[in-house]
This record gives sequence, structure tokens and C-alpha cells, in this order.
Amino acid sequence: VSVEANTAVVRRLWTLFQARDWDAAEALVHPDIVVDWPDTRERMRGRANFMAVQRNYPEPWGTIEIRRVIGRNDLVVAEIAVHDARGTTFAISFAELEAGRIVRAVEYWVDDDGAPPAWRAQWTERIAG
Amino acid sequence: VSVEANTAVVRRLWTLFQARDWDAAEALVHPDIVVDWPDTRERMRGRANFMAVQRNYPEPWGTIEIRRVIGRNDLVVAEIAVHDARGTTFAISFAELEAGRIVRAVEYWVDDDGAPPAWRAQWTERIAG
Repeated sequence: VSVEANTAVVRRLWTLFQARDWDAAEALVHPDIVVDWPDTRERMRGRANFMAVQRNYPEPWGTIEIRRVIGRNDLVVAEIAVHDARGTTFAISFAELEAGRIVRAVEYWVDDDGAPPAWRAQWTERIAG
Repeated sequence: VSVEANTAVVRRLWTLFQARDWDAAEALVHPDIVVDWPDTRERMRGRANFMAVQRNYPEPWGTIEIRRVIGRNDLVVAEIAVHDARGTTFAISFAELEAGRIVRAVEYWVDDDGAPPAWRAQWTERIAG
């Protein structure tokens, strides 16, 4: 399986999540997948658990924008922005693939941390979300 | 400049940050660098501003662990963990290089979000920080 095919799988997964097409998304997931969310210290072990979390994630959770996807061998990194009425949340996913399915992932979810500390304001400017 | 050389620059930058060797780190930074921190909606424009923030970042800020670095063309993604007495913070950096120096970066800083919501506890397990 080529890097191009692997990156296409990851792009397709996020596109299917956006479409809430859980059955099609599930076909891209290895039965033995293990997914970590380090920011909440959670692990989902196995396709049934991982997909249950996706299917039951409380709505509304916004619109997924795929910003960048880059791959090397069996690893694919995706930079994702999720826009909703409150603003933008970011996700960065490190996915490992095996024969065209995602078998391991570490996903970092980045919340808006609010106003930055004052000590560095002299060297920074503010940007939109 | 090869992908291998670019990834080596990014590895070296984080290693020099860990060593607080600001002068050596500065040599890897393009004068016109622009760095975004989306989680606090901050932008640092220009090498002097970016390096001032690094030099003045309040101690103690822990020990940098470089987990993964992957590159494609002029883009290098680094997955970083920063360990301190309170736990682990993560950083994911998307750096663009020009002639061996970092000219553009988007860095996501991921804080511990504390306990996860209860609705998904039936499908997840807790992991260490």
C-alpha cells in the first residue's frame, strides 16, 4: 500500500465522519484499532469501542476542515480544524495503517485556551480562531 | 535541501530549546519567520519576536521529549511531549523550511483537559499522561 493510498484513507475517514456515514467509516478501521486521546488520557481499544464513541458523540459538533495531510510509509499525520458556533477546535491525528486500514492512532484535540499570558504580549499579536 | 536535512533541523531546534542554547537555536530560524499558536490565538512575527518569547518563557517548563518527526518536501511535523512535575503537555509543530531554516510554523499546544465526559466512559479506558 502506497503513502498516497494511506493518505487517501485518512482524508476519506474525516470526510465520512463529517458526513456521519459511520458504516462507510467503519470499513476503514482495523478490527484491532487502538486510539489514544492524550488530552483527556483516554484510550479506545477495538473497532466497536472506537466507532461507538464516534456514533454517540453529542451533536452539534461542527464542520470538519482538513487542513493538511502528510504521510511517510505507514504513518499519516492530519491537521484538522472543527468549526462551530463557539469557534474553532483543532485536531492533529497521527494514524498508522496496515493494509489500507487504520490500526493505531494518537489524536491530539486542541481547545481554545483563552487569553494568552501577559508576559509575552510585547512580542506577539492576536490572530483569529 | 533534502527532507532528511529539514527533519534534522527541526530535531536540532527542539534539542537546542531543551539545552536553552538560544544563540544556536536562532541560527536555525529565518529572519522573516512567522509562528502561530492557535490554542491561544497568538502570532509571533519575525525572528527577534519569536526568539524573545523562547528566551523569556518562564522556568521551569520541563523536559522536552521528541516523539516523532516526519517530513515531506519543505514541511516537517514534530510530535513533542514536555514533561514536568505537574504532568505532560504535548506540542505538535508544522514547520516549513526555506534553505535549511524555519520560515513558517503552526504549533499546537495541548494541555491536559482533565477528566473526560461520562457519556463515553463505557467505551474507553484511562491512560497515563
